[in-house]
Amino acid sequence: MTTKSFHPPQRTLMGPGPSDVNPRILEAMSRPTIGHLDPVFVAMMDEMKELLKYAFQTQNELTMPVSAPGSAGMETCFVNLVEPGDKVIVCQNGVFGGRMKENVERCGGTAVMVEDDWGKAVDPNKVEEALKANPDAKIVAFVHAETSTGAQSDAKTLTEIAHRHDCLTIVDAVTSLGGTPLRVDDWAIDAIYSGTQKCLSCTPGLSPVSFSERALEKIRKRSSKVQSWFLDLNLVMGYWGGAGKRAYHHTAPINALYGLHEALVILKEEGLENAWARHAKHHQALRAGLEAMGLNFVVHAEERLPQLNAVTIPEGVDDAAVRTTLLKDYSLEIGAGLGVMAGKVWRIGLMGHACNARNVYLCLGALDDVLGRVKAPVEHGVALAAAQQVLAG
Amino acid sequence: MTTKSFHPPQRTLMGPGPSDVNPRILEAMSRPTIGHLDPVFVAMMDEMKELLKYAFQTQNELTMPVSAPGSAGMETCFVNLVEPGDKVIVCQNGVFGGRMKENVERCGGTAVMVEDDWGKAVDPNKVEEALKANPDAKIVAFVHAETSTGAQSDAKTLTEIAHRHDCLTIVDAVTSLGGTPLRVDDWAIDAIYSGTQKCLSCTPGLSPVSFSERALEKIRKRSSKVQSWFLDLNLVMGYWGGAGKRAYHHTAPINALYGLHEALVILKEEGLENAWARHAKHHQALRAGLEAMGLNFVVHAEERLPQLNAVTIPEGVDDAAVRTTLLKDYSLEIGAGLGVMAGKVWRIGLMGHACNARNVYLCLGALDDVLGRVKAPVEHGVALAAAQQVLAG
Repeated sequence: MTTKSFHPPQRTLMGPGPSDVNPRILEAMSRPTIGHLDPVFVAMMDEMKELLKYAFQTQNELTMPVSAPGSAGMETCFVNLVEPGDKVIVCQNGVFGGRMKENVERCGGTAVMVEDDWGKAVDPNKVEEALKANPDAKIVAFVHAETSTGAQSDAKTLTEIAHRHDCLTIVDAVTSLGGTPLRVDDWAIDAIYSGTQKCLSCTPGLSPVSFSERALEKIRKRSSKVQSWFLDLNLVMGYWGGAGKRAYHHTAPINALYGLHEALVILKEEGLENAWARHAKHHQALRAGLEAMGLNFVVHAEERLPQLNAVTIPEGVDDAAVRTTLLKDYSLEIGAGLGVMAGKVWRIGLMGHACNARNVYLCLGALDDVLGRVKAPVEHGVALAAAQQVLAG
Repeated sequence: MTTKSFHPPQRTLMGPGPSDVNPRILEAMSRPTIGHLDPVFVAMMDEMKELLKYAFQTQNELTMPVSAPGSAGMETCFVNLVEPGDKVIVCQNGVFGGRMKENVERCGGTAVMVEDDWGKAVDPNKVEEALKANPDAKIVAFVHAETSTGAQSDAKTLTEIAHRHDCLTIVDAVTSLGGTPLRVDDWAIDAIYSGTQKCLSCTPGLSPVSFSERALEKIRKRSSKVQSWFLDLNLVMGYWGGAGKRAYHHTAPINALYGLHEALVILKEEGLENAWARHAKHHQALRAGLEAMGLNFVVHAEERLPQLNAVTIPEGVDDAAVRTTLLKDYSLEIGAGLGVMAGKVWRIGLMGHACNARNVYLCLGALDDVLGRVKAPVEHGVALAAAQQVLAG
C-alpha cells in the first residue's frame, strides 16, 4: 500500500460542480486552525452570516452554512419542516426533485408529485392544480436550478402560488446561488439550501441555508422531535444563533469555513449583480460557440441556466471517450448526464471563478478538436469566432 | 459590514479538539480541487480506505470517512443500525453517552441507560446486568474515549459481553483513534465512528467510520428505510464501495479529503504503535508537571486517556479568566468543562501533532505563570522540572 502524499493534477472544472476554486479560497483554507469556540472564530461566524444574508438577499436571522454538503442542506430543510403525516407537493423536473421525494417519505410525510419533462421548468399551472386538489398540503418543494438538466424554474411565481394556498416553500438553490438572480426576501421563500462548490467557487462540503420566520414558526410548533440530532435546527441555532454566547453542538469544520468566508468576500467585492451579469454574458458566448459547432441545447433559451449548459451528445459519438480525451489531453472536466439523461447529454458548467473568457475559449477549442477527431467537424475555428463575437459585444 | 479576508491568529490548540494541525495537512488541503468522479480522485479514495483500515486496525470493507463531523458519524451508526422498536443498551459516563441516547430515541428505538459517574470508565458488570435484564436488546453502545471527562473504557471487554448476549456494538472512538490503542478487528467491534480533529490532527469536518460484516448484515435485513437519505449506508456504499464504478450520491468534500489523506499518510509514516507510545509518554510528562503544580486529575490513573487530561480547577480560581488569559498572553487554548463539569474542570488535550515536548513545556509554563497570578503558587519551575524528568526518561 502506498503511503505517499496525494498530488492532484491541475484541472479546469467545467462540469456540474465542483467548479474551479479561486486560489484565494484555497489559500484561506490553509490558514492556521483555531478552536471552534475561540472568540476570534465566533466573530468570523457573525461576519459569515452577514455575508450569506447578502448572497441570499435576505434578512433572515437563521442564515448559516450547514456543516456538510448540499444533500445535507436539503435534508436539513425537510427533517425540520416535514412532520410525520404532512403532505408535501414535490415538483420533479430532474434528478433532484426525486431526491426531495425520498426526503419527504423518510420524514414520514406524503409526497404529491408534480411532474414536468426533464429539461423543462416547473409548470406553475400544474402546481396550482395540485394545490387545489390537495388543500391539506403544507409545503411546496421545488428546485430553482436543476443541476441535472440546466433548467431554471420561476421561484417567485411558485412561491406566490404556494403562499396563496397556505403552504411554505422549500427551494433547492444549490446551483443558482451566486450565478443567477435569487432574491429570498423579495420572493418570500421560506426555506432554501445551496452548496458551496457551484457558483460560489468554493470547495465542496458546506451547505448554506436560510429560513424565514414563517418556517421557524412551523419548526417551533412541531409536535415531534426532529429525527436528526445533527441537523436539528433547534440545537444548531444555539450554536449559529444570535450574537453572544454559543452553545457547543458539534465541532464546526473550521478551515472549510475559512474558505467559504473568503468565497463570500470575493462575491461581495464583485457585487452580486455583477456576478449574475458575468454568468449571463459568458453563457451567451459559450452558447454561440456550441451552436456554431452544431450542438443543441436541452433546455429552451428562456428557461436556461447560464451556469449549466446541457447539450445533446451528437449521434454516434462515444460519450465517455470524449470526456476521457478532454480530461487526458486538456485536463478539462465537463459533466456527464445524470439519471435518464446519462449517455445522452453533456453538462458544461460555467460557474463562479470558472466563468470567464479563457474557459469559454478552452472548452470550445478542446471540444472542436476532440469532436473533430470522431465525427465530420464543422470548419475549425467557427465556434471560437462565434464566441469571440459575443464577448466583443 | 466588513468585506475583509479572515486571518486567524496562530494558536496552540491543547483543548479537547480541534488539535494543532500539521502544516503538511493544511498545505495538502490547499491543493487544486478536482472532480469527485475524476479517476485520479477515485484512486485516492481507494488509498484513503486502506489507510483508514490501518488506523482502525480492521479489514472491514466498509471503512470510509463520512462527509461531515463526528456527530454525523455517530448518527450514521445509529440511523443505519437502529430500527424503530429496537432496544439499545446505552452506557453513559459523560456528555457523549447522552447524545447516543438522543440518537436512539430519534430513530424510534428504546434506550436502556447504564449510568456510571462522570470521570469513570463504563462498568462491564453493569452492562452484563443490563443485558441479563433486557434479553431483547439488540445493540450495546458506549464511548471508548469520553472527550468530556478523559475516561477510557474497556472496549474489548464490553464488546465480548455484548456478543455473548447476541448484541452488536456501536463504539464512539472520536478521541481515541490514533492516540490510544484501538483494534477494531481484534476486539470484534461492529460499528465505530471517529473524528479527524483529535489525534489524527486534521481539520474538523469528517468522520471516519467502519462497519463489520455482522453490522452490514443487520443493515441489509432492515425492514424499514434508513430515515436519513444523506447517511443511508446502502446509498453511501455505492459511492465509497468496492473498486471500479462509483455511483454519484453526494459531492464529496474534495479538499477536506486531501487533508485526511495526508493525516493518515503521516500516521502511517510514524506507525500506529509509535503514535500511541508518543501520546502515553507526553501524557506522563504533563501529568507529572500538573501534579507538581498541585492540580488533581478527574480520572483514576488506570482509566485515564493520555490525550485528554481533565484536571479540577483549584478552589477560588476563575475558570474563564484563566482560559482567556492563556489565550491572550500565550495564544494557548485549553478546554473548559462540558455538561455537569462546566466551570469545575479544565480539559488539556495532547492530541496528535500537538502531543510533543514543546507543548508540554508551553502549557506547564503558561499555567504556572497565570495560576501564580491568582493564587499562591507552588515554587515556579517545579512543574517544568517534573515534566523534564519524565521526558529525560
